[in-house]
Amino acid sequence: MSPQLTIQPFPSADNEPIARALELADVPATVEVLQALLARHATRRDAEGGCPKAERDALRASGLLALSIPVELGGLGGSWADTLDVVRRLAQVDSSVAHLFAFHHLMLITVVLYAQPAQWRPWLLGTARHDWFWGNALNPRDRRARWTASGMGWLLSGPKSFCSGALDSEMLVASGEHEGRLLVAAIPTDRSGIAVHQDWDNMGQRQTDSGSVQFDRVWVDEAELLRDPGPLSTPRSCLRSLVSQLILVAIYIGLGEGALSAARDYVRHEARPWPLDGVARVEQDPYVLAHLGDFHVALEGARLLAERAGRQLDAALERGDALRAEERGELAIQIATAKVAAARAGLDVCHRLFEVTGARSTHAALGLDRYWRNLRTHTLHDPLDHKVREIGEWVLTERWPQPGFYA
Amino acid sequence: MSPQLTIQPFPSADNEPIARALELADVPATVEVLQALLARHATRRDAEGGCPKAERDALRASGLLALSIPVELGGLGGSWADTLDVVRRLAQVDSSVAHLFAFHHLMLITVVLYAQPAQWRPWLLGTARHDWFWGNALNPRDRRARWTASGMGWLLSGPKSFCSGALDSEMLVASGEHEGRLLVAAIPTDRSGIAVHQDWDNMGQRQTDSGSVQFDRVWVDEAELLRDPGPLSTPRSCLRSLVSQLILVAIYIGLGEGALSAARDYVRHEARPWPLDGVARVEQDPYVLAHLGDFHVALEGARLLAERAGRQLDAALERGDALRAEERGELAIQIATAKVAAARAGLDVCHRLFEVTGARSTHAALGLDRYWRNLRTHTLHDPLDHKVREIGEWVLTERWPQPGFYA
Amino acid sequence: MSPQLTIQPFPSADNEPIARALELADVPATVEVLQALLARHATRRDAEGGCPKAERDALRASGLLALSIPVELGGLGGSWADTLDVVRRLAQVDSSVAHLFAFHHLMLITVVLYAQPAQWRPWLLGTARHDWFWGNALNPRDRRARWTASGMGWLLSGPKSFCSGALDSEMLVASGEHEGRLLVAAIPTDRSGIAVHQDWDNMGQRQTDSGSVQFDRVWVDEAELLRDPGPLSTPRSCLRSLVSQLILVAIYIGLGEGALSAARDYVRHEARPWPLDGVARVEQDPYVLAHLGDFHVALEGARLLAERAGRQLDAALERGDALRAEERGELAIQIATAKVAAARAGLDVCHRLFEVTGARSTHAALGLDRYWRNLRTHTLHDPLDHKVREIGEWVLTERWPQPGFYA
Amino acid sequence: MSPQLTIQPFPSADNEPIARALELADVPATVEVLQALLARHATRRDAEGGCPKAERDALRASGLLALSIPVELGGLGGSWADTLDVVRRLAQVDSSVAHLFAFHHLMLITVVLYAQPAQWRPWLLGTARHDWFWGNALNPRDRRARWTASGMGWLLSGPKSFCSGALDSEMLVASGEHEGRLLVAAIPTDRSGIAVHQDWDNMGQRQTDSGSVQFDRVWVDEAELLRDPGPLSTPRSCLRSLVSQLILVAIYIGLGEGALSAARDYVRHEARPWPLDGVARVEQDPYVLAHLGDFHVALEGARLLAERAGRQLDAALERGDALRAEERGELAIQIATAKVAAARAGLDVCHRLFEVTGARSTHAALGLDRYWRNLRTHTLHDPLDHKVREIGEWVLTERWPQPGFYA
Repeated sequence: MSPQLTIQPFPSADNEPIARALELADVPATVEVLQALLARHATRRDAEGGCPKAERDALRASGLLALSIPVELGGLGGSWADTLDVVRRLAQVDSSVAHLFAFHHLMLITVVLYAQPAQWRPWLLGTARHDWFWGNALNPRDRRARWTASGMGWLLSGPKSFCSGALDSEMLVASGEHEGRLLVAAIPTDRSGIAVHQDWDNMGQRQTDSGSVQFDRVWVDEAELLRDPGPLSTPRSCLRSLVSQLILVAIYIGLGEGALSAARDYVRHEARPWPLDGVARVEQDPYVLAHLGDFHVALEGARLLAERAGRQLDAALERGDALRAEERGELAIQIATAKVAAARAGLDVCHRLFEVTGARSTHAALGLDRYWRNLRTHTLHDPLDHKVREIGEWVLTERWPQPGFYA
Repeated sequence: MSPQLTIQPFPSADNEPIARALELADVPATVEVLQALLARHATRRDAEGGCPKAERDALRASGLLALSIPVELGGLGGSWADTLDVVRRLAQVDSSVAHLFAFHHLMLITVVLYAQPAQWRPWLLGTARHDWFWGNALNPRDRRARWTASGMGWLLSGPKSFCSGALDSEMLVASGEHEGRLLVAAIPTDRSGIAVHQDWDNMGQRQTDSGSVQFDRVWVDEAELLRDPGPLSTPRSCLRSLVSQLILVAIYIGLGEGALSAARDYVRHEARPWPLDGVARVEQDPYVLAHLGDFHVALEGARLLAERAGRQLDAALERGDALRAEERGELAIQIATAKVAAARAGLDVCHRLFEVTGARSTHAALGLDRYWRNLRTHTLHDPLDHKVREIGEWVLTERWPQPGFYA
Repeated sequence: MSPQLTIQPFPSADNEPIARALELADVPATVEVLQALLARHATRRDAEGGCPKAERDALRASGLLALSIPVELGGLGGSWADTLDVVRRLAQVDSSVAHLFAFHHLMLITVVLYAQPAQWRPWLLGTARHDWFWGNALNPRDRRARWTASGMGWLLSGPKSFCSGALDSEMLVASGEHEGRLLVAAIPTDRSGIAVHQDWDNMGQRQTDSGSVQFDRVWVDEAELLRDPGPLSTPRSCLRSLVSQLILVAIYIGLGEGALSAARDYVRHEARPWPLDGVARVEQDPYVLAHLGDFHVALEGARLLAERAGRQLDAALERGDALRAEERGELAIQIATAKVAAARAGLDVCHRLFEVTGARSTHAALGLDRYWRNLRTHTLHDPLDHKVREIGEWVLTERWPQPGFYA
Repeated sequence: MSPQLTIQPFPSADNEPIARALELADVPATVEVLQALLARHATRRDAEGGCPKAERDALRASGLLALSIPVELGGLGGSWADTLDVVRRLAQVDSSVAHLFAFHHLMLITVVLYAQPAQWRPWLLGTARHDWFWGNALNPRDRRARWTASGMGWLLSGPKSFCSGALDSEMLVASGEHEGRLLVAAIPTDRSGIAVHQDWDNMGQRQTDSGSVQFDRVWVDEAELLRDPGPLSTPRSCLRSLVSQLILVAIYIGLGEGALSAARDYVRHEARPWPLDGVARVEQDPYVLAHLGDFHVALEGARLLAERAGRQLDAALERGDALRAEERGELAIQIATAKVAAARAGLDVCHRLFEVTGARSTHAALGLDRYWRNLRTHTLHDPLDHKVREIGEWVLTERWPQPGFYA
């Protein structure tokens, strides 16, 4: 990471050692420990914002940064369905840390899909061995960073915004413009000329460190460029955007589940029935029950859509270069469908849960608003209205969505 | 059936012979033929109402009345997932006939779950061999019909309402009160004393023949009574209500799919863009696309919920008497969830599709309102609000719904 | 009317004489009598469709065809707020007849706004004296009818669709194309060459006679053309479209009110509580109450929006030619706002009322579906989505909607 | 105020003198100045929370604390319609300060409605003359504070929660239990034994100082008790709860308007169209326009409902003791209707505005989430579901809501 930053880990006497997951079977237990650790200060950390240094280190120690890495490269050999399941579970308690974890794995699949095995095998090996944390500096809508050729390599200069997880990372996937095209590279974060700014201050997802990175004549070797096949080339390469979208889905659902769980726990232990509704216990309040029923129905539908999409994603990845455009298109529609359902279900829970928990549940110490702030922020990643339109176009015309960085 | 009725089959020169499904692999092709046959006059038959005699005979000829009957009893050996899939497909084009078909199979599983194999094996054998069509006279909310003991058997007297498919049936499942309890029996429809009235005239589901049956001292043998284990006894016996609920789900989804398909076809071939929206073709109308996208998202979620519930239902049936109350409870919640999602998704499509198809699509000849009338009627079977409440109670208290005729 | 049609009045022993409204103060009592008369066979007439000849004659006899005509021309001197209030009340019981009544008055204001007093005074005098019923043959989206100059006058030839109320009318407002522009005329319906077809058969608004009219070299005098100032010319002339839109609003609200009233009456007298909801009387069912509360809130908001727009319409009409484009624009937004609110409120009531009334309320004899079919049909007059967009454009840009036949 | 607190006014070089409103005609200009002042640091003050001391002093200096006081008592003689209009306008920029302002006037009408003129005339005179700020310590659901008789007066002891505006106030309306009944009194905040705690820390409405007050044997004179007629006695006395409810309505609408205004300004100046939606400018984005149109329709309906209720409230107040229970009941339904519409409209705007403004609008510096946090908190004052139920009960049974502290 860039030298000018000092990231303070939270002073935490309670940072017990995390039992490292050594094989796939260990993952559930490790995730439970991480959930407990993340839950402990989630409200306080949301209020303070900044880099969740201690929690990032806990992820490093957990072994889960190698979850999606094949066993033969030292990883846990988890499928994407496995990985997304962990993302969802972490998002139940802390959607910022879940996002950092998910984008780390997105960077890993990015190098796998955009480059050749000879390039990415060492990166995955190193990640599994050294618990490297990968960050994102790829934002394709920010076209200010530019490449210039320089001898055997390239120089990258300019700023990049929305760089989730760049802070405190060991590796970056970065992009810049060259002759009207986007070139993407994988580079160590501590390379000379890279400055990661701690300038993220948002109403939600406050610990995703999605601030800006400044590149100043950063030297990049030809072998670090991801251009065989590169982005948006083959159907397989285009799976990268779908992984990205499905990560959002997992986080939306996790947030909704976390919110529902918090609302339910509050009602069980704290809520009182409204005296005029004629019921003795809040468990009998017909409107509280109706809201909770609604929440479950919507979340459960989204969950099944997401699970199916996860299985289909793994199947598409297994197809390798044989993957056809229509197979990729069908998956794109499945993921878009899951995304719309998940965003709507989650937003509804996070917005309406207060009608279940009541006036006293707005106390700041409970932090029940953070679910809404996190999800509201995250569901703006790319416009939901446009996603619905894509689905509608396919319904009407049977044309698959045009592959791009958001579809 | 009762002698006093004359049911006129539609004069149909177009009643080509249906290729009979002889094994499970034949079913998809047979269903396609049935769909085409049902679609042909669905609008006209909806307008006229009454008994769909020709269509019922087509179902008899198709062999599909034996779909859920085990192969060893002469049936096609379809699972309930298979059966519900056929129900859904038929409902896409004709939800009345789909309902008759589904309730026939519901009567078969009723005798299987409420009685002993020695009783029901002959009934299933006869059904498979002779294409008996079963009708429903069980409505537990109508408590007017009563049993009196009579020598070696019983006499049933009184009226029963909402008797779907009793008309033109060979067998009936009927119920009456005895000493405060509901006793259920399986009896031939043509038994002396049974009068099936053609008195169903509703705004929707107009060909389900859900009228009344009058029993006048109908003699019933002890062996025709379904009371070992009888209704609402063991967890397995209580699966019957869940099958009934899941049938509704399949019909709701089929209706929604049929409506969406009709809307899409109309837009493709007939609709024009609104001149002030600045688009040249209706395929570009952003609001049309948004509605269609919404419809797909909701239906797809409901479909996955229904499919999962269907698989779990088959698994529960396979558990036999070992099925535990909590397993049954979990399935009840899955089915309730699917039902709420399906009803909402379907109602939304049927209600809103006109905002996609526009003013000219209200022509009576198109009959696009029948989807709404059918679904609106069918979703009132038992109150949706109560189903949401059941789910909410489970979310809050972890208590399973109380088994009953509607849960 | 055209000679080839025979319109059968319903054989009605119950057609008592209507007490004719002789002054504005008589109107409420007359409306009550009309409501009772319309309610009597509304369900049967909806089923049968066709021309409501007896009801049209009752409107003639009621004196209300002169409601919006100034007292000095023999009319009752009602304001448009008064007229719209009657439209709404009639729509509560019969939205087809309400539509015919409303479009009659729309035709009157059309000649007033599009032509000079010397032209329209005799028409209004004749209408008040002879109870002429005016019909509509203006549909600007059907551009098939064409004018050709012929000596001192013009000849109109070609078909026109969606001609509400042309059947059984004495006067028509008709339009045709001439050199790319729309010319509008007021002509007696029985003029040679006009054939009004009884070809309206729709899922809703079944007695609006909105079928087609065929013009075959119909001679029209120059003095019958409405082209000083003509359509879409001055801000005042452009009020005509707003009157048309506000009529829709009144009908939507009346339909919603009628539906809510029918639902409430059914619940009061027929509905039973769901046995599992733990309440003794349906008046205590929390979900029934919630639906009814929702309905009232939405309808009441729409009603206030419509009333304000009605008052502002009268104020704009009183401004005469001094009316400025921005005043007309502000009114356009008020009416668009009322329309969207009314359509949504009404549709929600008509769609959801069944969740209040329950399964038995779907009996065809009750005809509770006709509210939905009527409103669903009528709310497609011009796309609601486009109306919302117009409002959104104004919110964002402060630009008034472009005046046209639908705004 | 209680001695142990030190409230720091914000160091504000920018606190220009407020031109004091000397008569009703001055109010609009004064409100504009206040809006500008409140807007300046609203986001920062929301983040910091605590007592808005400088803003409270600005209200004192503005003369508006006397807005609802009759001219003959030194006030501005504003109606409640006037007062609620100012509440709404202040809530557009700062709903916490609007709440403090509104509850001050609620306390004034409380003493007027619960006590005799001889009691309340000096309080209103003093308020107009000295710009006393009144605070609330009446919460009827907190029954811990108790009265004991003591010679010529009473002693009040115990805590009270949700005491909006008690901090930095000159007068308090406080309540306690005595023999199972609630007795209410008006007392100076600096009386010995009153401790106002600065313990309010909530997710929204962060500067309403709605913390707790501790009474420790506070002496209260008989003449300070409001028990002729006292709370919940005559129909007129029961208007107090309706004023309270209508204040909530004004704040909800103001918050919605403020949120819509902020969203519109952001879109105008900052937002970019989504590149894949095929429009050049965000002003053409069909989905952005649709959201904005929706927002306007809902808010406008709520606004008209609130305005009517305000006029009717003033009319009811003018009726004095002649006010009948059914007149009060009708007003209660009008206010309940406005409340439900306002809460829903406002929540929808605050929740969905981000789909208009997009991802970059979540930057913390913009503070766009505060509208949602404020409204979400405030709409929990008493359950919206119960309010809908009250309306539904009236629709079905024609029974007015039971008067109480929330209806």
